[in-house]
Amino acid sequence: MIRFGVLGAGRIGKVHARTIAASKQATVAYLADAMPEAAASLAAEVGAMVASVEDIIKAKDVDAVLIATPTGTHADLIEAASNAGKAILCEKPVSLSVERILACLKVVEKNKSNLMIGFNRRFDPNFAALAHRLHAGAIGNLELATIISRDPAPPPADYVKGSGGLFRDMMIHDFDLARFLVGEEFVTVHALGSALVDEAIGAAGDVDTAAVHMQTASGKIAVITNSRRATYGYDQRIEVHGSKGMLRAGNVHNTTVELANADGFQGDPVLNFFTERYGQAYANEVLAFIDGMAKGVSARPNGHDGLQAQKLADAATESWSSGKPVKVG
Amino acid sequence: MIRFGVLGAGRIGKVHARTIAASKQATVAYLADAMPEAAASLAAEVGAMVASVEDIIKAKDVDAVLIATPTGTHADLIEAASNAGKAILCEKPVSLSVERILACLKVVEKNKSNLMIGFNRRFDPNFAALAHRLHAGAIGNLELATIISRDPAPPPADYVKGSGGLFRDMMIHDFDLARFLVGEEFVTVHALGSALVDEAIGAAGDVDTAAVHMQTASGKIAVITNSRRATYGYDQRIEVHGSKGMLRAGNVHNTTVELANADGFQGDPVLNFFTERYGQAYANEVLAFIDGMAKGVSARPNGHDGLQAQKLADAATESWSSGKPVKVG
Amino acid sequence: MIRFGVLGAGRIGKVHARTIAASKQATVAYLADAMPEAAASLAAEVGAMVASVEDIIKAKDVDAVLIATPTGTHADLIEAASNAGKAILCEKPVSLSVERILACLKVVEKNKSNLMIGFNRRFDPNFAALAHRLHAGAIGNLELATIISRDPAPPPADYVKGSGGLFRDMMIHDFDLARFLVGEEFVTVHALGSALVDEAIGAAGDVDTAAVHMQTASGKIAVITNSRRATYGYDQRIEVHGSKGMLRAGNVHNTTVELANADGFQGDPVLNFFTERYGQAYANEVLAFIDGMAKGVSARPNGHDGLQAQKLADAATESWSSGKPVKVG
Amino acid sequence: MIRFGVLGAGRIGKVHARTIAASKQATVAYLADAMPEAAASLAAEVGAMVASVEDIIKAKDVDAVLIATPTGTHADLIEAASNAGKAILCEKPVSLSVERILACLKVVEKNKSNLMIGFNRRFDPNFAALAHRLHAGAIGNLELATIISRDPAPPPADYVKGSGGLFRDMMIHDFDLARFLVGEEFVTVHALGSALVDEAIGAAGDVDTAAVHMQTASGKIAVITNSRRATYGYDQRIEVHGSKGMLRAGNVHNTTVELANADGFQGDPVLNFFTERYGQAYANEVLAFIDGMAKGVSARPNGHDGLQAQKLADAATESWSSGKPVKVG
Repeated sequence: MIRFGVLGAGRIGKVHARTIAASKQATVAYLADAMPEAAASLAAEVGAMVASVEDIIKAKDVDAVLIATPTGTHADLIEAASNAGKAILCEKPVSLSVERILACLKVVEKNKSNLMIGFNRRFDPNFAALAHRLHAGAIGNLELATIISRDPAPPPADYVKGSGGLFRDMMIHDFDLARFLVGEEFVTVHALGSALVDEAIGAAGDVDTAAVHMQTASGKIAVITNSRRATYGYDQRIEVHGSKGMLRAGNVHNTTVELANADGFQGDPVLNFFTERYGQAYANEVLAFIDGMAKGVSARPNGHDGLQAQKLADAATESWSSGKPVKVG
Repeated sequence: MIRFGVLGAGRIGKVHARTIAASKQATVAYLADAMPEAAASLAAEVGAMVASVEDIIKAKDVDAVLIATPTGTHADLIEAASNAGKAILCEKPVSLSVERILACLKVVEKNKSNLMIGFNRRFDPNFAALAHRLHAGAIGNLELATIISRDPAPPPADYVKGSGGLFRDMMIHDFDLARFLVGEEFVTVHALGSALVDEAIGAAGDVDTAAVHMQTASGKIAVITNSRRATYGYDQRIEVHGSKGMLRAGNVHNTTVELANADGFQGDPVLNFFTERYGQAYANEVLAFIDGMAKGVSARPNGHDGLQAQKLADAATESWSSGKPVKVG
Repeated sequence: MIRFGVLGAGRIGKVHARTIAASKQATVAYLADAMPEAAASLAAEVGAMVASVEDIIKAKDVDAVLIATPTGTHADLIEAASNAGKAILCEKPVSLSVERILACLKVVEKNKSNLMIGFNRRFDPNFAALAHRLHAGAIGNLELATIISRDPAPPPADYVKGSGGLFRDMMIHDFDLARFLVGEEFVTVHALGSALVDEAIGAAGDVDTAAVHMQTASGKIAVITNSRRATYGYDQRIEVHGSKGMLRAGNVHNTTVELANADGFQGDPVLNFFTERYGQAYANEVLAFIDGMAKGVSARPNGHDGLQAQKLADAATESWSSGKPVKVG
Repeated sequence: MIRFGVLGAGRIGKVHARTIAASKQATVAYLADAMPEAAASLAAEVGAMVASVEDIIKAKDVDAVLIATPTGTHADLIEAASNAGKAILCEKPVSLSVERILACLKVVEKNKSNLMIGFNRRFDPNFAALAHRLHAGAIGNLELATIISRDPAPPPADYVKGSGGLFRDMMIHDFDLARFLVGEEFVTVHALGSALVDEAIGAAGDVDTAAVHMQTASGKIAVITNSRRATYGYDQRIEVHGSKGMLRAGNVHNTTVELANADGFQGDPVLNFFTERYGQAYANEVLAFIDGMAKGVSARPNGHDGLQAQKLADAATESWSSGKPVKVG
């Protein structure tokens, strides 16, 4: 039985703690949160004990630490857990600073720690099935990957200010997906961005509508578009085109019900909430980490993947800001 | 060059005359209609001469007669054209009376005439492609065929009175399709019918909503449902299920445009008018007849197919009327 | 907290026990199964105590009994639980004999027991959403309901012998759905059936391919087709057509992934296993029962619904056997 | 009756001549082609007289000149026809040189000629319906337009050499569509391109896989991706996203037939040939020109539209070549 210490009992911490508790291979031994009531309530639900972050990290009966605390604490907690010999599953990102990530990964490397970063979309059943078939050769040589991601509704401008900006906060998932799908590093990044959805986002120095395209050294191209608002739900699509064909993974609709009348044929909006749309992805991510531990291997995406995605997010941010393409790597 | 005499310059006569005129293998030599102006106008358009029905049938420079006159005249005209040695393409049905059809087919048989009946749906590109794959074995042994046909709007109750009723007027197309798809004769027919769309249709002694299921001697089953009204267009679908899979042919929408918003994802209604929905089917039917003549063969559906469809329509009418299943053949 | 006694720890018993255990309003207090190991294993999982059927029914600290034992025991257990004052959720059917159902329902009525029958498909999220919109008037007056149900693979012929036949064993779900959708009782039933999938099923006196159509007194028509095998998964579809439009609920595919190449555009097969396809339906059914208890009302489908579905299944069986339509009610 | 002189009897000249001949408002009076046999054959078919280009342009009984000759002759012929007072429908592009276009448009402007440029995709029924709804406000304020265009198979490398490159030869259609949809001029263009489909295309100095994104002064973004090969047909899609929703126009499949079996649900490839996929678009384009003449107005896209599309194609080519974004206008 793998014993977890869960740091953070917020929205994602809860989701992950429940997955661990439901697993037959793992259990939540301890749980920490800055808000004692949140910690107590979740601990009761999953059968864990409440403890401090420090105590959890140094606890001898903890095998793995799941980090679901605010972004600013990730790198420090990874280092501490790594030094304490724990396996680590950390929510994305390691840090908004590439320098900080590099320093953190040095510690992880020195300790040969098992570190997995929570880019959950790789584990979405639809995207994972697409990637599996892509990597098995279903479309031959991939030439062009297209990723569309549109949030149901924009975040408050206040959130935007501390988020690092759309490219680091939202599109980073797509950067990871693009690397995962294409299987090569991108060397050129160019970004366009506008604040069209909410003026306040523009006033806060960020964008809410963006397009990035990137190219690998061998010429493969990835195109990512993001919007902070989609009236029809949480729009999440992938399409990869190659020498032998095309694979795409579409949205998940609320139901399969369709109404036909003089206005046409109308199906449902798509799933609206990320915890619903990606609920299975979050669970599969944690199960992949547990499965890796059981087998003694480090599951991907690892710290290096986290670093590379952050570099692409930085490059896109710089390109948007300067108007010029940015070379990476 | 195959020289046609076209009898009838109404809606279907026009469609067919234009197809013949556009063909490189055939021409409309003569054209007749009870309304002289209709005849003259269409004749001018397709480069034909106006003549009387009698003169056309006995004209030495006419190879084939296309009959698109009112139903009550079909059998007589087929006999006359057959006796005059012409090839014949006659709109469905030969007659609303099975006895009359039998007598007519005797003449056709005696003269060894090339007689094709205009069940156009066999020639719809989607249905024809489905049938081709079905008969090539794509789903193995067919077990269950489902045919859905819904008109966009009910006919006037006046029309209904002289139509022979829904089973003979509307569902007869589906009886022919069912035979075409299943490739065996149906021996048992049971029908249900209701007047739910328009009370006047019920008052006229007919139904506007109907379900028929039929079984062949080997046990294959066909299910047909009809409605005289569909708010979303002219609903025409086929589905065949067999030992190795399922084939279906869906509707044709006005455009491929889709609108997504908080109400969901809305595509267009389906094509509304039968001349639009089945325009290619009408053309392909005539071209198949011409192609058969060029090759010296009689194209299907032939007089026997017309007879069998009529028998099924009669059986369904009787079953609906009596409430009992009816044996055929 | 509603305390359940669960009778039967087989496939469905497990599914239901887990739903109860996960509910915040209910708990599995006791659990019985003829196989002690099955009972012990499930009891441990859901935190229940193992007890005998008799002890559970008479236990004072049991509010509701969930019956998931073999069909032959249902009626007796319902009566016993009813006499003991318990609320009862019983898997379909109450009995294969309409007489036995009637006798059982007399006991239930006398005791004014809360009895719900497990026709789970009413609770499928897609079908429930369709029904909700239908009953809210989305298509006006319903005229024609079409239900398609195809199992992924036929049962062993041995199973078929004791099943009561396809109409009672498989199509009974569709009879309940048809009543649920149409909202009126059917008065005429006609059935066709064939053994085309597996000769052994025919040799066992049953059919594996069947079509039933039924009509209500007001003329509404329902068409049901069943097959015991579909190569592309568990095919479960509903379509209702009415004066203002059409509603349909389609299948649920394994993923949203689509591959396009020279062979065309290929999507996934549909969910294959009934516990997967109807997993949410099973859960929602139990939750509806629990919710009804919490509110002091009896959830539908109740004993009368179970009786009516059984009558339709009997009528269809008789119609198939005699070849004649059967009047019901 | 508008009398046309058609210059060029190649593939597109034929398509257009037939549309004119079938129109009730216009006729093909004269027809010219460098290959006398091609001219004679098409002239016979559409009832025109063969004449030289010079004679056609100066003929007093010619109202409009349709230019479907090789690209290099377009600007000269437009000028000659403009000076002769004819209305002009010229296939795209006016010229591969923006300077040459500017000079040509001066002549057109001086003469106040009615000049329409043959960007046929604006007239595709699906795209036109999308544009109509977009411009009518169906999605509110457009924020992001995505255009996907993939040819079924790459052209010979020899063709590529004289084509001006993918951005001017293929993507120019998408530049025109982007302007048409977005309704604002793009001020920034960035392009990526690779030769991944055919090495010979790369050796010829061109690309076969490309991505361009562009931004207007107000911040609206358009993303275009092109490939010279799609195994599943001629892939032509548009998607526009805005404040109130999303509109998309999908591909047109060969048939509506779908096969389901253990491999999944397979629909047909999409229409493969541009004359089939855009047959209605070509016809509607000519009919719009004729309709404009009848009403005394100049139909769009006009010479300015041709100029702007060419500028974007040049900018994309330069951006691809230099790696830098290019400012336009």
